Amino acid sequence: MIRLDGKLVAESLREGLKLRTESFKSKMGRAPQLTVVLVGENKASQVYVKNKHLACQKVGISSQIIEKPESLQQGEFEELLEKLNRDESVDGVLVQLPVPRQLKSDRVFELLSPAKDADGLTYASTGLLWSGKPLVKPCTPSGVIEILKHYKIPMAGKNAVVIGRSQIVGKPMAALLLDENATVTVCHSGTRDIRSYTSQADIVVVAAGKPRLFGREDFKKDSVIVDVGMHGTGGGKLCGDVRYEELEGWAQAATPVPGGVGPMTIAMLLENTVYLAERKLKGN
Amino acid sequence: MIRLDGKLVAESLREGLKLRTESFKSKMGRAPQLTVVLVGENKASQVYVKNKHLACQKVGISSQIIEKPESLQQGEFEELLEKLNRDESVDGVLVQLPVPRQLKSDRVFELLSPAKDADGLTYASTGLLWSGKPLVKPCTPSGVIEILKHYKIPMAGKNAVVIGRSQIVGKPMAALLLDENATVTVCHSGTRDIRSYTSQADIVVVAAGKPRLFGREDFKKDSVIVDVGMHGTGGGKLCGDVRYEELEGWAQAATPVPGGVGPMTIAMLLENTVYLAERKLKGN
Repeated sequence: MIRLDGKLVAESLREGLKLRTESFKSKMGRAPQLTVVLVGENKASQVYVKNKHLACQKVGISSQIIEKPESLQQGEFEELLEKLNRDESVDGVLVQLPVPRQLKSDRVFELLSPAKDADGLTYASTGLLWSGKPLVKPCTPSGVIEILKHYKIPMAGKNAVVIGRSQIVGKPMAALLLDENATVTVCHSGTRDIRSYTSQADIVVVAAGKPRLFGREDFKKDSVIVDVGMHGTGGGKLCGDVRYEELEGWAQAATPVPGGVGPMTIAMLLENTVYLAERKLKGN
Repeated sequence: MIRLDGKLVAESLREGLKLRTESFKSKMGRAPQLTVVLVGENKASQVYVKNKHLACQKVGISSQIIEKPESLQQGEFEELLEKLNRDESVDGVLVQLPVPRQLKSDRVFELLSPAKDADGLTYASTGLLWSGKPLVKPCTPSGVIEILKHYKIPMAGKNAVVIGRSQIVGKPMAALLLDENATVTVCHSGTRDIRSYTSQADIVVVAAGKPRLFGREDFKKDSVIVDVGMHGTGGGKLCGDVRYEELEGWAQAATPVPGGVGPMTIAMLLENTVYLAERKLKGN
């Protein structure tokens, strides 16, 4: 079985991004720029934002963190987003969610311009994606596509099953697999006899959000399994939605957890930021 | 076999719309209003626009047709759209496509506000649809859902296959079936062995665009077949993508062509217009 190594793919992607940020810098006299908006004191958010900041630095993206107090009001929040939309020196914007309760996070998805949407999750970006004109793509599903492409797993004409229908993973994953000419089935919590779908699939992307729910008997021999799940099991250990160890000798290829899809998500955020910056080079 | 009679469902929908436009009028002192923009001299477009105008009149929607010359320039076109976006007396806007070659029709999908998008096809409307917050839904696929609901065909937990992945039918059809809790597969021109999917499906929505391509042997016994195809066969006759006559004694239910999905499309345009108007009543 081929171990689909997301850490390796992310590393190779970052090498390419370093060259692209250098080239951008030499043409524009500045680095590509990501602005992260962090509202309030959420500890987990602070860690995520710091990790994104470090990841930007490694590939030559300039990263700015705008910290706002827990008490930020809707009007000021929206003004900030409008200002960042207009600011030519800002290439990508990311609002770290969740935001404090008094703020309407939906307004982020309404207001942020698709030309600045580093996460690819605004309504406009979603609309462009499903209209066959994607600008930026959501990070996790586009990371999955990158892994499959890196390992030259063919998708065109294949029976691809996506488990999960979230805005962040399942639905955009279906759009991207369709764009790769796969025949795509979306299964979810309302699906009856999920195995009747997974056991016929050539490619299964599992984003069910349930620890170790799927194993060898759910999949077709020689199929390709991508596990988007990520769960703590105590003692600092992680597991996915799939019992990876059962796939050896059965699947053609699979992503481990950790070290599979996880490392791709931040890498695709960097990719999106550089891509949005490069659009400003206009034809170069 | 139950004949899924779209003419009947559309008629029943129109009866409800008449009551709603009356009620709207008594509260707002004006009828719901649809503005149709017709650019140039396309004969087919002129017929479509006239039919929509007549359909509006029948249910008490006030319909305005703005005719612009073939030579209309992009700037003027966009100004018109912006003006309609701002005009409080306009509830729904529809730009009849195709527009003359010098105009970028994509800009319609970018510029028209989702709050005015009677066709439900702009990028913003598409984004809202796939983000679980649909405002208006594209007319043809939402017409299909209405037919299935009218005949109390259960969708939740069912294996639903959509054939076709267009922006207008296939993709939004998948979104709406997912919202009804069906497990949804999208097949298309790149699908291998399409029958392996259709023959397992409880519900098949066919939008392949090929006359009489599918017949009894493609479908599971007692399945429900919806035919979105519409083709002239000469002599003023019409046929669909499915050989309807073969389904008798096999399918549980099916839409004929003509008289199936076709009559629903304009009915849903009227529904969207009234819905957008009613949003202005704010809580009434």
